Amino acid sequence: MSEFTLTTFQWVPEWPRGHVRDLRIRWALEEAGLPYRVEGVPFEGRGAEHLAHQPFGQVPWISDGDISIFESGAILLHLGFRSDALMPTDPRGRSESMEWVFAALNSMEMATVPWSIFMYSGYREDTPEWKSLNDFVMARLKHLEPVLAKRDWLAGRFSVADIAMVEVLRLVDRLGGLTAYPACREYIARATKRPAFVKALADQMAFFAAAD
Amino acid sequence: MSEFTLTTFQWVPEWPRGHVRDLRIRWALEEAGLPYRVEGVPFEGRGAEHLAHQPFGQVPWISDGDISIFESGAILLHLGFRSDALMPTDPRGRSESMEWVFAALNSMEMATVPWSIFMYSGYREDTPEWKSLNDFVMARLKHLEPVLAKRDWLAGRFSVADIAMVEVLRLVDRLGGLTAYPACREYIARATKRPAFVKALADQMAFFAAAD
Repeated sequence: MSEFTLTTFQWVPEWPRGHVRDLRIRWALEEAGLPYRVEGVPFEGRGAEHLAHQPFGQVPWISDGDISIFESGAILLHLGFRSDALMPTDPRGRSESMEWVFAALNSMEMATVPWSIFMYSGYREDTPEWKSLNDFVMARLKHLEPVLAKRDWLAGRFSVADIAMVEVLRLVDRLGGLTAYPACREYIARATKRPAFVKALADQMAFFAAAD
Repeated sequence: MSEFTLTTFQWVPEWPRGHVRDLRIRWALEEAGLPYRVEGVPFEGRGAEHLAHQPFGQVPWISDGDISIFESGAILLHLGFRSDALMPTDPRGRSESMEWVFAALNSMEMATVPWSIFMYSGYREDTPEWKSLNDFVMARLKHLEPVLAKRDWLAGRFSVADIAMVEVLRLVDRLGGLTAYPACREYIARATKRPAFVKALADQMAFFAAAD
C-alpha cells in the first residue's frame, strides 16, 4: 500500500487551529487506516512550489504515488474510491456520498464561509449586507435540520460526506450559529465521538503547537 | 442506454435565464451525446416531492435509472464517470478533473455567489462588507488567471471541470468582474463556441420562454 503525504501549513495562528482543512483529510485517513505522513509549508509567502500543488495558495493537498490532488472535497472523494470504510461501493451509495460531499461544500459551506469572513472583517450586524448573508446561512440550515433529524449519517452509513458536512457545521457551531438546530448539533456530537476524529483533531493541534 | 431525466424549474424570471444550473448538465449531456429529457417543477412553492429529490429546494437534479442525484457538481462527476467525452479515464486525468470541478465550485463559486447576491440585495460599494467580498473574488481570479493563460482546458483536455468553471466565470463576466482577467475571458470565449454549449444555452432559453 502506498503512503500518502498530506501537506498543510507548518503553523497557523491560534484561532483557526482545530478547523484547518487538513483535519478533514486526517480524519478520513484515520477512518480508513491508510498510512500517511504530514508535511508543512510556510504560512507566510506562498511560493511557486506551493502554487504548483495548490494554484490558489491554500491547503491541503495530498500526494498519492505520483498524483498530487488539491481541494478537500476532491481529496475526500479520491480517498473514498480507495477505501470502502469511507464510501459505499454500490452505485446508489456512491452517488449519495458524492452528492452530499458537494452539498456540504456547495450548499452549506458556500454560505458559511462568507458569513464567517464577516465575523472577522468589521461587519456590523445592523447592515443589509450582514442580514442577507445570515439569512442565506439560516435558510440552508433550516433545510438541513429535518434531513439530519431523520438519519444518523447522510449516505445511509458513515462516509466522506459526513466528514465534509461535520467539518462545515463545527465552525458554524463555534460561531454560535446552530442554537436553533438541535439535530445539527446532535449530528456533530455523534460524529466527533468517533476515535478517528478525536485522533485527527489532537494531531492537528499538536502539529501546529510544535511549530510555535 | 438509459435515458436521463433532468429536472429544473418550469419557469424563472428573465434575469437568471442563461445561468440556471441545469445549463451545466444540459451542456455535459450534449457533449457526451447522452439521451435525456427535461422536466419542470414549480418555481414558487417547493413541495415535498421537490425536497425529496433536492433537500435544499434548488435545481437541478437528474434521474439515471432508479438513482436520483442533486448538486450540479455531483451530477457532472456522475456523468463524467459515464462518458469519456466528459472525463479522462486515466487516474491522473480523473483526479485532475475532480479537483478542478471542486475548485470551480469551492474556490471560485464560493466567492462569486455571495458577491453576486450583494449585487442584488442593496449592497453599497463603499462598505467594508462589500470590499471584503470583492477582495475575496479578485484574489481568487488573480490565482486562476495564470493557470488559464498556460492551458486551454483545466484537466489537460476538455472535461466536466471546464463546464463547471466556465459556468461560474460567465456570471462573473456578465456582472463586469473579469475586465482585468483576459485569460479568463478568452477561456470563456473558447468554451462557449462549442456546439454543445450553444445548443444547451438555446435549449434553456427556449424552455423558460415556452412557460412565459
